Amino acid sequence: MAVLQREYGRRALMSEIRKAGRIPRIELSERTGISRATVTTITAELLQHGLIEEVAREDGSTDSRRGRPRVDLKIRGAARLVAGVKISHLKLSLVLLDFEGQQLECIERDLDQSVHAPDALAVQVTQAVRELAETAGHTLHDVSGVGIGIAGVVDAENGFVYWSPSLDARNVEFSQLASQHLGLPAFVDNDANLVAFAEYSFGLARGVPDFLVVTIESGVGLGLMIDGELYRGTRGCGAEFGHTKVHLNGALCRCGQRGCLEAYVADYALLREATLTSDADTSADPSHRIEALLNAGRNGDPTARSVVDRAGQYFAMGLANLANIFDPALIILAGEQMQFDHLYEDAVIEAMRKSIIRVDRDPPEVVVHKWGNLMWAKGGAAYALDRVSDLALDEMSDNAA
Amino acid sequence: MAVLQREYGRRALMSEIRKAGRIPRIELSERTGISRATVTTITAELLQHGLIEEVAREDGSTDSRRGRPRVDLKIRGAARLVAGVKISHLKLSLVLLDFEGQQLECIERDLDQSVHAPDALAVQVTQAVRELAETAGHTLHDVSGVGIGIAGVVDAENGFVYWSPSLDARNVEFSQLASQHLGLPAFVDNDANLVAFAEYSFGLARGVPDFLVVTIESGVGLGLMIDGELYRGTRGCGAEFGHTKVHLNGALCRCGQRGCLEAYVADYALLREATLTSDADTSADPSHRIEALLNAGRNGDPTARSVVDRAGQYFAMGLANLANIFDPALIILAGEQMQFDHLYEDAVIEAMRKSIIRVDRDPPEVVVHKWGNLMWAKGGAAYALDRVSDLALDEMSDNAA
Repeated sequence: MAVLQREYGRRALMSEIRKAGRIPRIELSERTGISRATVTTITAELLQHGLIEEVAREDGSTDSRRGRPRVDLKIRGAARLVAGVKISHLKLSLVLLDFEGQQLECIERDLDQSVHAPDALAVQVTQAVRELAETAGHTLHDVSGVGIGIAGVVDAENGFVYWSPSLDARNVEFSQLASQHLGLPAFVDNDANLVAFAEYSFGLARGVPDFLVVTIESGVGLGLMIDGELYRGTRGCGAEFGHTKVHLNGALCRCGQRGCLEAYVADYALLREATLTSDADTSADPSHRIEALLNAGRNGDPTARSVVDRAGQYFAMGLANLANIFDPALIILAGEQMQFDHLYEDAVIEAMRKSIIRVDRDPPEVVVHKWGNLMWAKGGAAYALDRVSDLALDEMSDNAA
Repeated sequence: MAVLQREYGRRALMSEIRKAGRIPRIELSERTGISRATVTTITAELLQHGLIEEVAREDGSTDSRRGRPRVDLKIRGAARLVAGVKISHLKLSLVLLDFEGQQLECIERDLDQSVHAPDALAVQVTQAVRELAETAGHTLHDVSGVGIGIAGVVDAENGFVYWSPSLDARNVEFSQLASQHLGLPAFVDNDANLVAFAEYSFGLARGVPDFLVVTIESGVGLGLMIDGELYRGTRGCGAEFGHTKVHLNGALCRCGQRGCLEAYVADYALLREATLTSDADTSADPSHRIEALLNAGRNGDPTARSVVDRAGQYFAMGLANLANIFDPALIILAGEQMQFDHLYEDAVIEAMRKSIIRVDRDPPEVVVHKWGNLMWAKGGAAYALDRVSDLALDEMSDNAA
């Protein structure tokens, strides 16, 4: 019991210090309910292991009895470095954070293809993390852990990728593979989960224990935060939203099933319909064709408008179903691609609100958060920070035992 | 900290004793990680307050050092009585449990209408609970708490009914109202939540921390258990499944929106289509018409079969969406009415499995659990047991303070 309590106490205090930024010992005791004496003992250990540090109170106040400057505790930034990697269609985006979560460096690296052999992808990730560390004046082995976000169905706890559009094989132990190449702990998760983690750690959901994030790239992703924990399902492949069905026996999806939300809102779904618009040029590059379609819609082309509107209606229907099931306080629509603007239109949000069961309370708040790939990478780094922090505390316990 | 630890310890030990049935002190210490000395102190308090009792070990073994019979601890059944009430269409179903969860009595009472003024319903519930207690040789005031299950959108934490098909008013403080009439603590919740609670406490999901229950009566209900806790959403109106949309701009639902799952699978939805079948007799009683429709389907009437099959397909689609989002290990389909057999058919379950995103793991287990209104009432009683147990421990803390 004593050992468990000590471990619990360390985790609770580290987490509270991280949340607070800077905090005096006495407030740690008040916020956690852990006695002042125990707070003093545990923070002494954390100081000794270099995970936290003392800093003079910012108001310059001094201890009235002893005349010394009052001190706060904070996470010691230099204690660890972590990297976050987002694997996108043809790009790796990376960010390097210190142990406080301060961003030290960020880089992007092109990939020469979108689907990779697992081993080859692990090699490219390793090379990119090495370049990230070196750009910041460090070496790869100064990094304590790497969080990796990838699209697809991922069992994060086991670092196992059931399926990803970025891999040419199914059922890949990708955390283990990346760890071997990196020579460092690697933690892989579904990219939308990491966006939820980033919103919770740095973004629009700080301090919000229950919210959901919907991400829109080439696919539709979902991250569910329930009571401050990512909800992953019993096999690690929960929170699958893009392949929930919005039409019985509906449009054919890339996954081989029919009527998936993605089969109505993804790029390829729009393009499938766009062949019927007046200015369709099927020989053009897909992204140009999407752009032409959306422009035509904005300029009042009725067929293009119909394609775009239908996508918005199905998106609203899917969102309303999530809102009915979760009754969240906050829904964040996150994405970087301007091409999905049509899904963020007020009319879509309004259609969603009309499909939520009516009670005499305000509907959930919906916010649109446009951000770049680096924010996705930051989610990966935040996840690594969490895991590396646990590893550091585990080491303390092992040493004590 | 010491007070909080003591309170935590009491709750942990009560819960562990309840889970185990009978358990020796030393095993309590092992299972909870609470020291033997603390287990001895806390269980002495619980014994003193009459919440638990000592019983001779069933194997008749004796303490080798002291020669006395070895004892187990168990919940003291006589400590408290709780009642559960299920409010159905035209019926109240009630069950009386002792503090161990043993069923002492059950009764049913007809209601003369299906929609009630809140006050009138509270009066009828009170009268029925009084009869329940008296049938078991007790009085109403021997009961320590009453759990009430009602269809609709309920904020259980606040005992607030946003809307229920059984009430003629919206936004009713029904727990408070029922408490006033009963002169006892009353706890109201959505009926499907209480079924999930019953499955977790007594049914097919004992020891399963994550599962979902879908209930089918005149509406479609959902209870979500996540990590051993009912998921209720941020406004208390989460887990709304019957009004998730399965068809954009689809069939009109009783709720006024279009395309809700209920608008395809509920009684009234089937009857709406049944007017087109060969032997439709629109003057007959609705339940007879449903029966005639289902019989015609079983006997090969193609129109009736088409009505029934479509309901099954939409039900499968809705279930698959839940499975994609939650990735549950277990889905329980619970209901009492044989008329919904068509929704439980193998073909429906198979259609659901085909709409879940494919990974190389088994799909969730789906079990059908047919039970009567008394099992719903038992869910209400289990909920009351949980809350009454908390109240008893709160009293101990108040007395100590």
